[in-house]
Amino acid sequence: MTTTRPDTDEVLATAPTADTLPTDVAQIAPEHPTPGTLDAGALHAALLGRWAESRHRVRELIRDPRLHRDPLLGMDEHRERVLGQLRILVEEGTVHRAFPAEFGGADDHGGNVAAFADLVFADPSLQIKAGVQWGLFSSAILHLGTEEHHRAWLPGAMDLSVPGAFAMTEIGHGSDVSSIATTATYDPDTQEFVIHTPFKAAWKDYLGNAALHGRAATVFAQLITGGVNHGVHCFYVPIRDEEGRFLPGVGGEDDGLKGGLNGIDNGRLHFTQVRVPRTNLLNRYGDVAADGTYSSPIASPGRRFFTMLGTLVQGRVSLAQSATGASFLGLHGAIAYAEQRRQFTATDDEREELLLDYQNHQRRLIDRLARTYADQFSANELLEKFDHVFSGADATDEDRQELETLAAAIKPLTTWHALDTLQECREATGGMGFMARNRLTQMRADLDIYVTFEGDNNVLLQLVGKRLLTDYSREFGRLNVGAVSRYVAAEAADALQRVGLHKAVQSVQDRGDERRSANWFKDPEVQRSLLEDRVRTRVADIADTLSGVRGKARAEQAAAFNTRQHELIEVARQHGELLQWEAFTRAVEGLGEGQTRTVLTWLRDLFALRLIEEDLGWLVAHGRVSSQRARSLRGYVNRLAERLRPFALELTQAYGLRPEHLRMEIATDAERVRQDEAAAHCAALRASGEAPVEEKVLRDRQKAARR
Amino acid sequence: MTTTRPDTDEVLATAPTADTLPTDVAQIAPEHPTPGTLDAGALHAALLGRWAESRHRVRELIRDPRLHRDPLLGMDEHRERVLGQLRILVEEGTVHRAFPAEFGGADDHGGNVAAFADLVFADPSLQIKAGVQWGLFSSAILHLGTEEHHRAWLPGAMDLSVPGAFAMTEIGHGSDVSSIATTATYDPDTQEFVIHTPFKAAWKDYLGNAALHGRAATVFAQLITGGVNHGVHCFYVPIRDEEGRFLPGVGGEDDGLKGGLNGIDNGRLHFTQVRVPRTNLLNRYGDVAADGTYSSPIASPGRRFFTMLGTLVQGRVSLAQSATGASFLGLHGAIAYAEQRRQFTATDDEREELLLDYQNHQRRLIDRLARTYADQFSANELLEKFDHVFSGADATDEDRQELETLAAAIKPLTTWHALDTLQECREATGGMGFMARNRLTQMRADLDIYVTFEGDNNVLLQLVGKRLLTDYSREFGRLNVGAVSRYVAAEAADALQRVGLHKAVQSVQDRGDERRSANWFKDPEVQRSLLEDRVRTRVADIADTLSGVRGKARAEQAAAFNTRQHELIEVARQHGELLQWEAFTRAVEGLGEGQTRTVLTWLRDLFALRLIEEDLGWLVAHGRVSSQRARSLRGYVNRLAERLRPFALELTQAYGLRPEHLRMEIATDAERVRQDEAAAHCAALRASGEAPVEEKVLRDRQKAARR
Repeated sequence: MTTTRPDTDEVLATAPTADTLPTDVAQIAPEHPTPGTLDAGALHAALLGRWAESRHRVRELIRDPRLHRDPLLGMDEHRERVLGQLRILVEEGTVHRAFPAEFGGADDHGGNVAAFADLVFADPSLQIKAGVQWGLFSSAILHLGTEEHHRAWLPGAMDLSVPGAFAMTEIGHGSDVSSIATTATYDPDTQEFVIHTPFKAAWKDYLGNAALHGRAATVFAQLITGGVNHGVHCFYVPIRDEEGRFLPGVGGEDDGLKGGLNGIDNGRLHFTQVRVPRTNLLNRYGDVAADGTYSSPIASPGRRFFTMLGTLVQGRVSLAQSATGASFLGLHGAIAYAEQRRQFTATDDEREELLLDYQNHQRRLIDRLARTYADQFSANELLEKFDHVFSGADATDEDRQELETLAAAIKPLTTWHALDTLQECREATGGMGFMARNRLTQMRADLDIYVTFEGDNNVLLQLVGKRLLTDYSREFGRLNVGAVSRYVAAEAADALQRVGLHKAVQSVQDRGDERRSANWFKDPEVQRSLLEDRVRTRVADIADTLSGVRGKARAEQAAAFNTRQHELIEVARQHGELLQWEAFTRAVEGLGEGQTRTVLTWLRDLFALRLIEEDLGWLVAHGRVSSQRARSLRGYVNRLAERLRPFALELTQAYGLRPEHLRMEIATDAERVRQDEAAAHCAALRASGEAPVEEKVLRDRQKAARR
Repeated sequence: MTTTRPDTDEVLATAPTADTLPTDVAQIAPEHPTPGTLDAGALHAALLGRWAESRHRVRELIRDPRLHRDPLLGMDEHRERVLGQLRILVEEGTVHRAFPAEFGGADDHGGNVAAFADLVFADPSLQIKAGVQWGLFSSAILHLGTEEHHRAWLPGAMDLSVPGAFAMTEIGHGSDVSSIATTATYDPDTQEFVIHTPFKAAWKDYLGNAALHGRAATVFAQLITGGVNHGVHCFYVPIRDEEGRFLPGVGGEDDGLKGGLNGIDNGRLHFTQVRVPRTNLLNRYGDVAADGTYSSPIASPGRRFFTMLGTLVQGRVSLAQSATGASFLGLHGAIAYAEQRRQFTATDDEREELLLDYQNHQRRLIDRLARTYADQFSANELLEKFDHVFSGADATDEDRQELETLAAAIKPLTTWHALDTLQECREATGGMGFMARNRLTQMRADLDIYVTFEGDNNVLLQLVGKRLLTDYSREFGRLNVGAVSRYVAAEAADALQRVGLHKAVQSVQDRGDERRSANWFKDPEVQRSLLEDRVRTRVADIADTLSGVRGKARAEQAAAFNTRQHELIEVARQHGELLQWEAFTRAVEGLGEGQTRTVLTWLRDLFALRLIEEDLGWLVAHGRVSSQRARSLRGYVNRLAERLRPFALELTQAYGLRPEHLRMEIATDAERVRQDEAAAHCAALRASGEAPVEEKVLRDRQKAARR
């Protein structure tokens, strides 16, 4: 096993060549690109982003079968296997990049997350258990602790001699961390904190490493000293002895079998008056002196809380990458299969049709490929932002807030899309896709929890929505409501005029001219305006509702907010989609002029137009798209998918997954071999003159003879 | 274990009572229904339909833990357990209703399917393995064989002494059954058929009972006699001896682990010149005389093929019922949990908010509840149609075709909705929903394959679409294209006028009056017109495209068809939704006037308006809904969901699942107990005067003191 950087050419050796692609491509005008002419290296580089080297290294490492999931293992064996795999990662030195150089790390936050995320191809359980150990448990020590803590606990956490649990979530409080009920009460007489679980709902739950392997935990609890609750802080708490027995006062339960990720020993923990030294408080953002005096560099309890939690954003950043990788994995299998599998005869040709030549199949897979590209480009920008903030001497508070918002928008979109894509790929490959050997169902089952852990997707989007409202009110805070509405209306009208959105005009111009409609839709300024305007207008409208109850009782305000909650979450999603469109467009612009850029532009257009198609009711009802243009949209989207069809496999393969990453029969040429064998058999039978005649053909012949 | 009919009151003992429902219901005008006042018995009867007795009996039976899934079993143990469970079903006499009285059955097709479908609550593997044995293998003998076959093979198939595989699907051909490649060539010298697998793609695959337990198989193969291929016929073929060893010429493989349904031993079979007596041809629709002469009561090979396959429609009919049951199961858990679980404090109230009081949560769960009701009512109508055709002295060819089309429309909608609902329920219950003990993930994994087996959902919808086109062209066959378009346009305009859809009129009438819009949307005639018209107009438009290539080369026709395939499948779905709306409306009308009917009407409206909302782009762009009305729709849908919120649990519980069917922690009161314990602890702490003060509160006090 080598950890040196593999040659990029070697990594790209699986990229498509002309002879692996279908020759019966759809008709394309001569000046258009043809399959096999895309610049696979440029696409690969664009997809893998700034930390491609880091990814290549880990992708090379996980070709090792010892790191692969064995689907036949039961829960207990799977858990032990994954623990062993974590030890291999330590041996290979692949998991310490984010840590300080003095502890053997490289202070490389972006590269660390990029590499960590790609572990998903080996086994999502391996990825997430590694995430628990180094992304959460060790990171809490690193980011919430200070030098003494680093020296005391980082080495054991990093080399896995102390497997650790990250004990934040409780049975009673998941999304609302500030309301957790575990207490850490300072006792000045002994200079200890007393960690205590007051009731069942305060049991820590769903913690990786808690059921079996954990020796210590970073426990989040309400810090109480001198009768004052200073809010949630984090404590380093040993939980098991060397023989794996719970320490006095510590107890727990095994969560047992889950819907997926069964290689991780999730469990519950509770504490009964467990005493730890005062210095076990990870005290970077809040400390208690020997006499019990509390101090913090951050005066506001609210800001302090969010700063502490903010150090944990890397989970969301990495899930966006992993989820998108899983989407690529699924599409690689389903598109490779659809390029071989034939079903039903539509023409007089002897051979049946390839699945990918069916329009419906194109819409199912290529639409999702477009979105997967958008996911990847936006996840890359999120990763860059994360690296900037975490390695950043010059990162500002605003950068941190932007990072939070970006992560809260992109993590939901990418993780939901992965589930949707894996499911569609499963269905598009039929019974074959349901077989465990094709990995789609297990990958989907493992990633299921990604949409609610590290921040429930709906709760995260609501955060984004609130941020949009805050930004909006900052901009218009001093204007009265009517003025704001008028301003937005006027501005929107301006924007509409600018890009020719205005309804009356366009209706006249477009009447009966579908090509003009298509040209309009593919104008990036039109796409941007539509995607921006729908967010802006809705935010303004919701803000309007809320300003109507400004100064009213809290219950009344909450009720008013609740009447718009569903739409606010939708608008947050749309804001995320706008960010994705922008990232996609920047990626397109980063490519040199040429065929590859042309094809990627089509893919960006397909992404944009699908978004517009999904929201067409609003866009037409609000005069942003004329009825005439709306009616032409579906045809244009269909033609875009058809135009992209010959490039679908190349575009998927450009992500660079090798056979050891894929490990799916549908991604091999097994189906083509079977098809060829069947075709050869039929041809030989016909040539032999012994092929039976079809009853219907015989009847037709007999009828003809009787005439 | 009793198999007598349980008292309906007993079954309904789990129905909600006023004190299990929240008291903080949304404001409702006095004349409106209040929670706890719904007629649970009437709802239950409407949901369970004509064969409620049959369902009650099997629901009573499967309270027995011996029939439940044990989630901890590995694949091998699970397979053996399910085989044992099938034997229990035989002992209890619950699986033979559909068979003739002379073999111990009751000739009761509807009751049989209703009971069979409800086995899903015990374990979907049990349901589907029972389906393989009695719904497919035994049914093929019954429906495709004749008296001699019934006497010879039905007893062993029925009492499970001969477990059997239904060997239709091949690796190379799933949806396109007519193209399977296994051959059955008649040898007049020995009066035998020679069953043969010519190449790998012709291996039978995904067959339940094939990997381990099957002793015989009903094998579908191309019947060849005298050099003529008479198309697909079914043969009874022994495959294993008493010790479970393959008979000479028979071979196979185990499909191994799957994405779900791992209690079933799916596998592959292949045949190398396997000889069976001439009389092993199940010869109801086609026979071969000793001298090799072929005869059939159905002259057309195409019609003969579809008649044979048509006897197997009951799989689709039962899946629609099972899938809808699974949707109810998921919603029961998620809604019961959302009535207990609290998260985030929105008001000054000490207690956090119930999840179901959040608008977004209402939209996530109650929208799906409305659709689940629509699924159930439409699945019940499908079942009635099925029973009519199968027990029917008076069933016509048209009845059979309608049954096929109805099944092809309803099976896709219900099975997809079950996956969507189970997933949303999983997410809506967070980490709790991911635990195997809450069953949501396993149920979803098991039902995953329902969307592609017994007919791939997309292929089935395409069949529906083609039927719509056929019906359309029958109606307008002699008119030229232009005339058809004009006719449809004129008719549509008539319809629009009739229900006040016309755009210009409504824009003027509605301006600024949201209530008038809402009244319009809740008019059933408006709902029907919108749902009907969108189907009719699109079908006419697609027919237009196709008539443009009438008489052209087959390839050109296929290409033209392919340009509309995606929309045709969508319109088929919409046709299914229209049928569901009609079934829902008939069910509402079947209730007596009163509160229950009022609430069910709201639910029907919610179902309809969600469909309209999803398709709003088309409806506005085609002038069916005015922009003004479109803009008011979301608010109205939100208010409908809010109005239904107090009844959500009652509506879910009316389906009648008992604790032994649910077996989910989230469906118990565990969360409420934890919440109450936590609340009591906090109250006691406050009363003691020893509760710590919040840092923020302290600071505010200090600030105030300094002033």
